[in-house]
Amino acid sequence: MQLKHVLEVDQFRRSDLDHIFAHALTMRAIAKHGTDNRLHDKILATLFYEPSTRTRLSFESAMQRLGGQVISSEMAAETSSAAKGETIQDTVRIVESYSDVIAIRHPDAGTSAAAAGVASVPILNAGDGAREHPTQALLDLFTIGDELGRIDDFAIALVGDLRYGRAPRSLAKLLTQVNGCRIIMVTPPGIEMAQDVLDALIASDVAFELESDLSAVVGRVDVVYMTRVQKERFPSEEEYSAVQGRYQLDPALLEGLRDDAIIMHPLPRVGEIHPGIDADPRAAYFRQARNGVFVRMALLDLLLNNQSQD
Amino acid sequence: MQLKHVLEVDQFRRSDLDHIFAHALTMRAIAKHGTDNRLHDKILATLFYEPSTRTRLSFESAMQRLGGQVISSEMAAETSSAAKGETIQDTVRIVESYSDVIAIRHPDAGTSAAAAGVASVPILNAGDGAREHPTQALLDLFTIGDELGRIDDFAIALVGDLRYGRAPRSLAKLLTQVNGCRIIMVTPPGIEMAQDVLDALIASDVAFELESDLSAVVGRVDVVYMTRVQKERFPSEEEYSAVQGRYQLDPALLEGLRDDAIIMHPLPRVGEIHPGIDADPRAAYFRQARNGVFVRMALLDLLLNNQSQD
Amino acid sequence: MQLKHVLEVDQFRRSDLDHIFAHALTMRAIAKHGTDNRLHDKILATLFYEPSTRTRLSFESAMQRLGGQVISSEMAAETSSAAKGETIQDTVRIVESYSDVIAIRHPDAGTSAAAAGVASVPILNAGDGAREHPTQALLDLFTIGDELGRIDDFAIALVGDLRYGRAPRSLAKLLTQVNGCRIIMVTPPGIEMAQDVLDALIASDVAFELESDLSAVVGRVDVVYMTRVQKERFPSEEEYSAVQGRYQLDPALLEGLRDDAIIMHPLPRVGEIHPGIDADPRAAYFRQARNGVFVRMALLDLLLNNQSQD
Repeated sequence: MQLKHVLEVDQFRRSDLDHIFAHALTMRAIAKHGTDNRLHDKILATLFYEPSTRTRLSFESAMQRLGGQVISSEMAAETSSAAKGETIQDTVRIVESYSDVIAIRHPDAGTSAAAAGVASVPILNAGDGAREHPTQALLDLFTIGDELGRIDDFAIALVGDLRYGRAPRSLAKLLTQVNGCRIIMVTPPGIEMAQDVLDALIASDVAFELESDLSAVVGRVDVVYMTRVQKERFPSEEEYSAVQGRYQLDPALLEGLRDDAIIMHPLPRVGEIHPGIDADPRAAYFRQARNGVFVRMALLDLLLNNQSQD
Repeated sequence: MQLKHVLEVDQFRRSDLDHIFAHALTMRAIAKHGTDNRLHDKILATLFYEPSTRTRLSFESAMQRLGGQVISSEMAAETSSAAKGETIQDTVRIVESYSDVIAIRHPDAGTSAAAAGVASVPILNAGDGAREHPTQALLDLFTIGDELGRIDDFAIALVGDLRYGRAPRSLAKLLTQVNGCRIIMVTPPGIEMAQDVLDALIASDVAFELESDLSAVVGRVDVVYMTRVQKERFPSEEEYSAVQGRYQLDPALLEGLRDDAIIMHPLPRVGEIHPGIDADPRAAYFRQARNGVFVRMALLDLLLNNQSQD
Repeated sequence: MQLKHVLEVDQFRRSDLDHIFAHALTMRAIAKHGTDNRLHDKILATLFYEPSTRTRLSFESAMQRLGGQVISSEMAAETSSAAKGETIQDTVRIVESYSDVIAIRHPDAGTSAAAAGVASVPILNAGDGAREHPTQALLDLFTIGDELGRIDDFAIALVGDLRYGRAPRSLAKLLTQVNGCRIIMVTPPGIEMAQDVLDALIASDVAFELESDLSAVVGRVDVVYMTRVQKERFPSEEEYSAVQGRYQLDPALLEGLRDDAIIMHPLPRVGEIHPGIDADPRAAYFRQARNGVFVRMALLDLLLNNQSQD
């Protein structure tokens, strides 16, 4: 496997996934015993043009767990030369002088790909636009594999805002690489999954159905993947509350969930999952967040080891 | 001594203080020779929901002096998921996946305790609300011990804003753990020490008196602890200036100060201490700031060594 | 050579430059093989009161490439005690407790010198006011030496905003230390080089001439040093566009450039250099940015090795 950049979900074939996930398990074993030193002479630059403490710290922790160093721009949109009109290509050609790998978060879709077009170091897409968040999709599928014991032959409910949420969109696209997966999309009108993703699922023979009643779905799946419904997508407070209230996982709803099923959420949550179920062994969302570090460790290591063999 | 979290001044008994301060002396010796490597496989996360470059950098320096790594959020209120409505509990349960200890600064009192309620890693309160700043109190008392040669049997003047200042409030509470301390509170009307602190002093038989004339007090104490009077607490510029001008330590006032007395200030200062006395050997405030690193090194080491023995 | 601080261009004599540039070459060899460990027990504090991701990351990368640690304030103007009215002197006397060297970026000229006046650790001026950016001037001259094979006997065109740009101003002053240099200043009316710099050039017998037509100059120089014309300096969009359009280096203009000449730019650029010439071997601006890391590594090492011998 030759991993040059991590730009989009579509770049990964099934064999890549198997390889990355196996490596993430190795990384988890390393993290258990503190840190490793294999990237001790490497520097990760994180360029965040959009605030995301969680994702940034996850990448930075991953780098440090492997002995690497980090240089970081938490508010690049305001503090970097972008504010003076510099292109991302120029920024990257300079920051690659300072670092061995660059993670970019940007509000505009395609920014990471544009960066990779000129970069001599690996680029990691840490989320761009409303479309792609490939490392989130990888950690989600890794979590499914870790929790269920398989990444094939399972049913998953994607619940909530499937149109604007980067996470469910990216995960759905990644599911084209597994076998025997059935997706139930549970979403209110107006924020359904976009047609290009549905087309990709059809082209890959991934079974999916559309639902609107969460309670009817809970008992039929191995994974309930909740997402935050973003308030700003709705014309009025009233309409938002109606949708928001409709997709809340609480102890009552949970009774219908199978014992071996799991609950996931890319987090942050704002009411979609009642805190009362955090202690339930099926609540996997905090383990999911933790897996993000292991998957990002794996990606950093794969990217930088390739690099050093150039 | 089993140190699990550092949340509030009241958690410390006298024996804890002796232990922490002895350890801080060891840390000072380490820092003198550069750095140590004992926390090389540990990561500190600093989550600052309120700007405080000084406190944040002090914690981060302490961690690095022990060989540890740091991941940092300088403006968490704007850049983290808190802006999307996430609870501190959720944030902490995620950030604990990325780090081995978390320092939190927050405008709301009780945030650190709430975080500790769910955290599996140690939480350090780096200041929350107007009430608690336990590491400041510890470094203040450590400084008194280092300068006077004792943490018992001394008289201290707390001067300025005793109501809204976290530092004098936290220090006063910590003084319930020492013997033979006399506190003279020098403060204008309206910003006196809060009743709950006075009650705690009474309950612990700590002698205190209330004064308003600084010049009458200076010659009677071993420690003059100045604080900044915050402009925004006063209804008019005029009233602020009257108070601010009243509590200014200048070379003239200093003539009344005993030779073996010291001057402290949690800093930043804005006119309360005339720069002309910075070179006076009794001016201890910059040494006090430096001690902050040693005390925080001691706390980090005690927290993480306990942790690793779990 | 005894390097205590890096505050202004005028502090450097020719022998200093030779020494620093030789050391920068050593640093480049180190960086080629990853990192070194010579500053493993040192901490760099970066205090940026003015946003500059590029310069900050360059310093931080330089420190890390030598094994050092970094504590960093990306938005010190908002988050530090400066916002509460603290002087830079007080800030520095505290931050020197946390670190072994401090890099300061500040909108006010003279801030770094004021800091150095009280500091017990080395101060690096990372740009203050519109006047000084000494590390930029050093990396610029190092780049000229690296590209041309000499830092004497060359002709350089300084193009664009020579009045408000820190970079061309600082470079021109540094050129008083080389022999046989001829400067052609190509600038529109209103943003010519300031008189104090011209006086310094005259006093040092540096030949210079003033031009306004870039195309007439290109063929006569070894170095074309482009700068960004800052929009906010012009009364109207129209006048800005006229100037901005006049000093654009494009493939057509480049035909007049000698084969062994180079193009430099302190970056960011906004249209002054057409991206179509990035691949031209004479386009040295990205190599120039990369050299910034090596020169800053050299400065950090020289400052901290001196320091440790005190």
